[in-house]
Amino acid sequence: MWFTHKVAFVDSCVKNVQPITGYGVSKILDTGNANFQKGDLVWGMTAFEEYSIIAETESLFKIEHTDVPLSYYTGILGMSGITACAGFYEISTPKKGETIFVSAASGAVGQYFPEGIDIYFENVGGKMLDAAILNMRKLGHIAVCGLISQYNLAEPEGVKNLMPLIYKRVTIKGFSSFKYFSHYSKFLDILLAFIREGKMVYIEDIAEGLEKTPAALVGLFSGRNIGKQVMLSAIARILLALKYLTLGSFSSQGVDNGIA
Amino acid sequence: MWFTHKVAFVDSCVKNVQPITGYGVSKILDTGNANFQKGDLVWGMTAFEEYSIIAETESLFKIEHTDVPLSYYTGILGMSGITACAGFYEISTPKKGETIFVSAASGAVGQYFPEGIDIYFENVGGKMLDAAILNMRKLGHIAVCGLISQYNLAEPEGVKNLMPLIYKRVTIKGFSSFKYFSHYSKFLDILLAFIREGKMVYIEDIAEGLEKTPAALVGLFSGRNIGKQVMLSAIARILLALKYLTLGSFSSQGVDNGIA
Repeated sequence: MWFTHKVAFVDSCVKNVQPITGYGVSKILDTGNANFQKGDLVWGMTAFEEYSIIAETESLFKIEHTDVPLSYYTGILGMSGITACAGFYEISTPKKGETIFVSAASGAVGQYFPEGIDIYFENVGGKMLDAAILNMRKLGHIAVCGLISQYNLAEPEGVKNLMPLIYKRVTIKGFSSFKYFSHYSKFLDILLAFIREGKMVYIEDIAEGLEKTPAALVGLFSGRNIGKQVMLSAIARILLALKYLTLGSFSSQGVDNGIA
Repeated sequence: MWFTHKVAFVDSCVKNVQPITGYGVSKILDTGNANFQKGDLVWGMTAFEEYSIIAETESLFKIEHTDVPLSYYTGILGMSGITACAGFYEISTPKKGETIFVSAASGAVGQYFPEGIDIYFENVGGKMLDAAILNMRKLGHIAVCGLISQYNLAEPEGVKNLMPLIYKRVTIKGFSSFKYFSHYSKFLDILLAFIREGKMVYIEDIAEGLEKTPAALVGLFSGRNIGKQVMLSAIARILLALKYLTLGSFSSQGVDNGIA
């Protein structure tokens, strides 16, 4: 009894400390869900921990194609891929010859696009969006799926260059990849073909060991990572050697990928 | 010769002083253009003056229907009507039961639309746009044709509430009515029917005498006018009595309507 009392404070602290959640690749060790079997590889929302109990399986996708790196399912073949495809094929409609700009961190837009931008894939917001609007071409499209530069500000920066929206007749469209999960199978076929044919090169920045998660997370916001930041757990490393895998990642849109 | 020299300074001043241009209704007194005849009533871009020489006739529309007040062609049956129709029928696609908000001056949006806005017709910008975005419903549309609150600022106010664009999947579309002049005849039929059937009530704030133009113009920016601000010239008043008319107006989008 005294033990219970003595640890009451610690216990309530621990109760409030949850592992970071995010998208990850997992191998199913045991399941009571008829849609999954022991040994299945899946990707979906889980937590940054060695072992997870996943109760919500609606957004858990079985991995059928293992001829590509499994870690890709934490990004290009997972949520990030759905976001990219939804943004390109459903939100904006790119035509041959158009200039497309995808932002991931702040920078000087104008000098890179002297002839202007037709489609801007907005992940950053703030000054980047202000600069991009100035460089948009007539009838350009801005697909907004993230505003990472604004997430940690006490008050968001204001976007000031809105007049060009009128005289260049620009469309800004916010979207969330969650609404396009039903398109996954179609998008996966497109992306797998690009990867297998070498038309798409995908770069990952893999940190090994969950203890490196905080530093990797902070690095995202200062633009330290080159490519998709992926976390590899210690047990996953062992399972990797045994041809089993457990991977997780951060995406450049914030803490949206985890480990299981 | 001395006269020329003596008035050189005044002369150069006068050269730089042009009458304000804008949309107005005119009666043609004389013409060398085969598309128009003496006595035709027209609306289009002209200047705030009793008599004008109109050289550019491409955007000059002949007035065929005179069973409605001629002054309406400076607004609802002219450029403002094209803007409204383009915004509703071409840019946003209103459905029965949706809530539509058209801004004209700053105010507290939220208290008027507790259940949110489906379509926002943006003429104001700044704090109004910030407030409107917070009150948009999922999949809402914002048609931007003006940002009057920003025109006289040294630096535009920033719009800060952009995150809701993502999670509410809002579309912002800038447009210019100039691109829809070819649709005028179709739009006119729609608007004339609304007016004749009494389904649309149009309010005008008519100031008589060109000398009242500066005060009326300033009033626009402080929200003094109730309804469309129209200027009626002195000669027009006489012509009105004789069943001839010359009218002009400001619109709430700035100095875009004149007198001829």
